[in-house]
Amino acid sequence: MLEHGGRLQQAAQRYGIPRDRWLDLSTGINPVGWQGTAASPASWNRLPEEEDGLLEAAQAYYGAANALPVSGSQAAIQALPRLRARSRVGVPVLGYNEHAHRWRQAGHDVAPLATAEFAGALGGLDVLVVSNPNNPTGERCAPSQLLEWHTHLSSRGGWLVVDEAFIDTTPENSVARFAGGEGLIVLRSLGKFFGLAGARVGFVLSSPAIAQMLQEWLGPWTIAGPSRLVARAALEDQAWQESNRQRLRREGMRLVESLTHHGLKPTGGCDLFQWVVTPNAQAIHEALAEQGILTRYFGEPGPSLRFGLPATQADWQRLDSALREVAG
Amino acid sequence: MLEHGGRLQQAAQRYGIPRDRWLDLSTGINPVGWQGTAASPASWNRLPEEEDGLLEAAQAYYGAANALPVSGSQAAIQALPRLRARSRVGVPVLGYNEHAHRWRQAGHDVAPLATAEFAGALGGLDVLVVSNPNNPTGERCAPSQLLEWHTHLSSRGGWLVVDEAFIDTTPENSVARFAGGEGLIVLRSLGKFFGLAGARVGFVLSSPAIAQMLQEWLGPWTIAGPSRLVARAALEDQAWQESNRQRLRREGMRLVESLTHHGLKPTGGCDLFQWVVTPNAQAIHEALAEQGILTRYFGEPGPSLRFGLPATQADWQRLDSALREVAG
Repeated sequence: MLEHGGRLQQAAQRYGIPRDRWLDLSTGINPVGWQGTAASPASWNRLPEEEDGLLEAAQAYYGAANALPVSGSQAAIQALPRLRARSRVGVPVLGYNEHAHRWRQAGHDVAPLATAEFAGALGGLDVLVVSNPNNPTGERCAPSQLLEWHTHLSSRGGWLVVDEAFIDTTPENSVARFAGGEGLIVLRSLGKFFGLAGARVGFVLSSPAIAQMLQEWLGPWTIAGPSRLVARAALEDQAWQESNRQRLRREGMRLVESLTHHGLKPTGGCDLFQWVVTPNAQAIHEALAEQGILTRYFGEPGPSLRFGLPATQADWQRLDSALREVAG
Repeated sequence: MLEHGGRLQQAAQRYGIPRDRWLDLSTGINPVGWQGTAASPASWNRLPEEEDGLLEAAQAYYGAANALPVSGSQAAIQALPRLRARSRVGVPVLGYNEHAHRWRQAGHDVAPLATAEFAGALGGLDVLVVSNPNNPTGERCAPSQLLEWHTHLSSRGGWLVVDEAFIDTTPENSVARFAGGEGLIVLRSLGKFFGLAGARVGFVLSSPAIAQMLQEWLGPWTIAGPSRLVARAALEDQAWQESNRQRLRREGMRLVESLTHHGLKPTGGCDLFQWVVTPNAQAIHEALAEQGILTRYFGEPGPSLRFGLPATQADWQRLDSALREVAG
């Protein structure tokens, strides 16, 4: 299995700093996630039910007719490769590495591609996986471009898979509302913008045919009952969504400014994280860790760092002081 | 997909009785499930972590060294058939039908067998799936018998899969503590005895090799963070476990007595449900439903009914009155 999580635990041991003393910027999760009505106690004690309003809430939020709830987009990333005969699959060369891993594991021919190579490679692909925006590079594809690629692929029975895990602050860039068409598969998650990473709820927006195949593959009761209630409430909380879209845009800009100010101008990013390509990435990662600030270090293809958002004013100041010392 | 759940919803519509007026005896779930410490709010907002004490709690409760947490035993029932080359698989002819369905779906040769046929069929099988006790028949297999079958199968690279979803009130019948041996796979669930069907937490007890294959197949974060906390607390709550084992044994006997008193002597069962084979099963099912009492009706191989446990004194009286009218 690819390495996931446990990085904070490892860092705590390696640097001899207790877990609760860390400022963890190693994820792209909204640090001030949705918190609201507790799930009803009874939802723990009965099997989750379909008729609980979650589907309707998702359809309204995503503007998509077919919204299949899944246990995080991870569940869809694992299942989709099992639903196709051996295919030629393009994936981002630098991106969430579970995409490439799971398509390979299912026996497909996987081509890692830079974003700029997508268009040229399309003729030789059956499936193209695009993360929009991409993680960690922050690269974006215009919806019109994505729809053109979709038309191209679907005319040959192919798929365009668009992982929109980080798109919620810029819904105008989403192709969710087009996902009813055959061969366009959009993955959404409540883990990042809503900050509900622990709930394990995501959605696959697709044609009815693909939704049915996926549902059969994934089986019944893949999401906990309390998670369904919390997800529904978050999807219906338009006031929270609007204020958080604004807040995260501001915070995202603040992170760009802070990094730039300390000589770490981001190469790319989105509202929830910034990505810095620098030859000193490893040294900076380690120096910050010695001060109890955890970032995400990438060694390949070149050294780079990803910074998530601090939560509080004190966390911002802590990051700023540390950057001054380390990079300034 | 096989039909699951939604029966209460359907019954509510068919009989014109609102959902909250029903006495739902159609499941085998402990009607007074574990309810305790609410999950911490923060557990919704971060990715679930392995180092949260759940594993240790499960190892202690099950007496097994390898306990892989899964999203309900359903997740394991779906995954196990994917981990073997085409095999000859024996399953209970009358039992939880997802076992047969998922082995067939994965391309195996499935032989539905009566419990009495297991021993004779063993020589021609690669895998035998046993539910102990079986649902709905309540049939039991002695641990010594199961271990003999396991030795037989594992000597040829085969598997014995024991679904122990309903065994928690009679832990002396469990083979959990032997599950470290190659080819013995024990499925446990927190959905029935603990009544935590909404949490979607179960465990696969197996050899390290099988646990590793399963974990790779299932991928990361299959269980919600709050579910992990609730499951750990329930597994560690020995006082609740002991009092519920006693309570459910008493309630199980009470259900046998009540059904017997009204001429519906159970053919089999366990503490959490009783199974009644009778030519009048359908008529009784419908007559009870007209009074807002939902049982589970089986048409195959012959007509039968399964009764779960009422929760409260008022529920018991309601069942008793209805049985007097319907069956008496």
